[in-house]
Amino acid sequence: MYSEQCYKLGSNRSAIRELFEYGKQRAAIVGKENVYDFSLGNPTIPAPACVKEAIVELLETTSSMEVHGYTSAQGDAELREALAQYYNNTYGTKFHADNYYITCGAAASLCISFRALTESKEDEFIAIAPFFPEYRVFVEGNGAKLRVVKPDTENFQINMKELEEAINEHTKGVIINSPNNPSGVIYSKETIEKLAALLEAKSKELGRTIFLISDEPYREIAYDGVEVPYVTKYYANTIVCYSYSKSLSLPGERIGFVLVPDEVTDSRNVYYAMCGAARALGFVCAPSMFQKVLIKCLGQVGDINLYKTNRDILYKGLTELGFECVKPQGAFYMFVKAMGGDSAVFCEKAKALDLLLVAADGFGCPGYVRISYCVDKEMIERSMNAFKKLAEQYI
Amino acid sequence: MYSEQCYKLGSNRSAIRELFEYGKQRAAIVGKENVYDFSLGNPTIPAPACVKEAIVELLETTSSMEVHGYTSAQGDAELREALAQYYNNTYGTKFHADNYYITCGAAASLCISFRALTESKEDEFIAIAPFFPEYRVFVEGNGAKLRVVKPDTENFQINMKELEEAINEHTKGVIINSPNNPSGVIYSKETIEKLAALLEAKSKELGRTIFLISDEPYREIAYDGVEVPYVTKYYANTIVCYSYSKSLSLPGERIGFVLVPDEVTDSRNVYYAMCGAARALGFVCAPSMFQKVLIKCLGQVGDINLYKTNRDILYKGLTELGFECVKPQGAFYMFVKAMGGDSAVFCEKAKALDLLLVAADGFGCPGYVRISYCVDKEMIERSMNAFKKLAEQYI
Repeated sequence: MYSEQCYKLGSNRSAIRELFEYGKQRAAIVGKENVYDFSLGNPTIPAPACVKEAIVELLETTSSMEVHGYTSAQGDAELREALAQYYNNTYGTKFHADNYYITCGAAASLCISFRALTESKEDEFIAIAPFFPEYRVFVEGNGAKLRVVKPDTENFQINMKELEEAINEHTKGVIINSPNNPSGVIYSKETIEKLAALLEAKSKELGRTIFLISDEPYREIAYDGVEVPYVTKYYANTIVCYSYSKSLSLPGERIGFVLVPDEVTDSRNVYYAMCGAARALGFVCAPSMFQKVLIKCLGQVGDINLYKTNRDILYKGLTELGFECVKPQGAFYMFVKAMGGDSAVFCEKAKALDLLLVAADGFGCPGYVRISYCVDKEMIERSMNAFKKLAEQYI
Repeated sequence: MYSEQCYKLGSNRSAIRELFEYGKQRAAIVGKENVYDFSLGNPTIPAPACVKEAIVELLETTSSMEVHGYTSAQGDAELREALAQYYNNTYGTKFHADNYYITCGAAASLCISFRALTESKEDEFIAIAPFFPEYRVFVEGNGAKLRVVKPDTENFQINMKELEEAINEHTKGVIINSPNNPSGVIYSKETIEKLAALLEAKSKELGRTIFLISDEPYREIAYDGVEVPYVTKYYANTIVCYSYSKSLSLPGERIGFVLVPDEVTDSRNVYYAMCGAARALGFVCAPSMFQKVLIKCLGQVGDINLYKTNRDILYKGLTELGFECVKPQGAFYMFVKAMGGDSAVFCEKAKALDLLLVAADGFGCPGYVRISYCVDKEMIERSMNAFKKLAEQYI
């Protein structure tokens, strides 16, 4: 009567959501201040002031039909032109308006890309653990298969040997996400160079174009001046999937883009395939008012020092308590080794202390937990006693 | 290297878009006032004042994270509750918040529904000509087939005999669109009753649930007090796909819903399948700020008297010139018989007079043209001389 696959996707709530709901129930019992919910990756920095200003200005100066009317499917021409200029000025690239396809956020960008590039149900996209679990839903939902490369648990860059072995005659693309959810690590220039060399060699060897899908909503959430290499400059067949969810703190507004640079093989046709994929998925155009807001906000970022402060408090506190953590260079996640080795057991013990942590098994990285620190600083400070009690159970 | 199907969808521009672009080129040559562009169905009535008021109020009173943050995937709980109350008060239905899934507009609603309901690639959805051509893209893009029922060219209700013959053991659903794009006709209560009886009989006969997909973005655009029956009251297995594109003149903001009433067989599971379909298609949540705006604007409609005036001028003018038109009861389209019988030839002759009309062959109704009258009243008045010249070529 209905699609069994869709039913399963719709009825199986994500473990993260379940934990979040549990947190709300607990808060009702023990008080909000006594529950330490580190489950969700929902930005807690307000949108920069330019967003509100741009909205108010648009409503005051521009006709309703222009503000709220359809834009062309690929997006407002002025916005696409502004994007090309902004990226060219910032990264020394040579993009133009017609490289950009404006989307309803990163999930849309990814689905459009997977749909556009998939030719056969044997096609595979490769995710590098730890990875955002929805990649599997998006890849499989668009007719391809997901293959997972095991994590490099030493420094959470890319396990190149494993990746090399994973690439085969069905490989359509490799997905990267840097700054990374859930590890907080940024892929170094060296990593990107090695990755590009590997993909070039493999493309030649296999006689097929291997795309690099760079999912980078956290690009601007980077600390201590660490460089986030602009991937298209290293590998020609790169597709960039971007979203303003994190940089402008607009996750609910569903606005982002797919970028298909001219350097991509058969670039125009790949772009057309993106247009067609979006059409088949039911994306008519990206939300029109926020397209116009973006024109006035390019290059702006919320005050990420708030996240940095959280990172510093949490990293210092947890390492002093004996936890083994990757020091996050970006995004707003801390990736912590589960004491005792079993992340499910570790998370249960934490939960008993009202510390809500996410086991990273779903991210392809068993034995670790993800702590989202896009939360109130005070909650982090209050939580330290619970972390202390948790550590004491293992010492 | 990429999906051939997506490439075709992305590179073949729609004939309507081509005509619209041609109109802009002609305007640059002969002057904007001498081109009569009736090609696009883009609302020309401003959004009602409540939209701007609600946006400004939200920005003044509510935190950035609450306005722009993720809502739950199925949509803001307060909005879904308000929708249930509004529809119950207006139509005497018995909906509740969990019958509603908020979407990025009608295209999203339709794609989600087709994806959720399709179990096998043999599954068929039936469209009743004349029909919105993107139905084919949405149905085929989600793995099913589209079957078309020929139009009832006498009064543009439903050709029940043809529909009865079209229903078979693969039929998953029937799509209706009333008020109709492109005919402007509203399906009468009698039509809906006959349709419901047919679908009930056929469901029983074939031993399968046949869904009625009611695509109704034009519901509120109805003139002269003509009733638009609320379809769920006539047929239990009705899925409603709605959008605020027309009623609130917000086509670019991508906001609408799917409604799965409790009366639907296995209703909760069908709803979960909708949730899963949305997830697989890359819809994370509907634009958050406009979800909150809707709460304050339910029941509001732009000033549709402007469309009605256009309809009256155009209908009177064209019939006096000898054109055979269906008198539109709703939406903002006039459906006109092509003089001479060949709509392509007729549209070419019109185009030579800078009258841009859309041949309805793509809508499954050869021999007719669609005239979108969501345009300036003055353009309609200026165009009458060109229509006169067009008619004279056939007399």
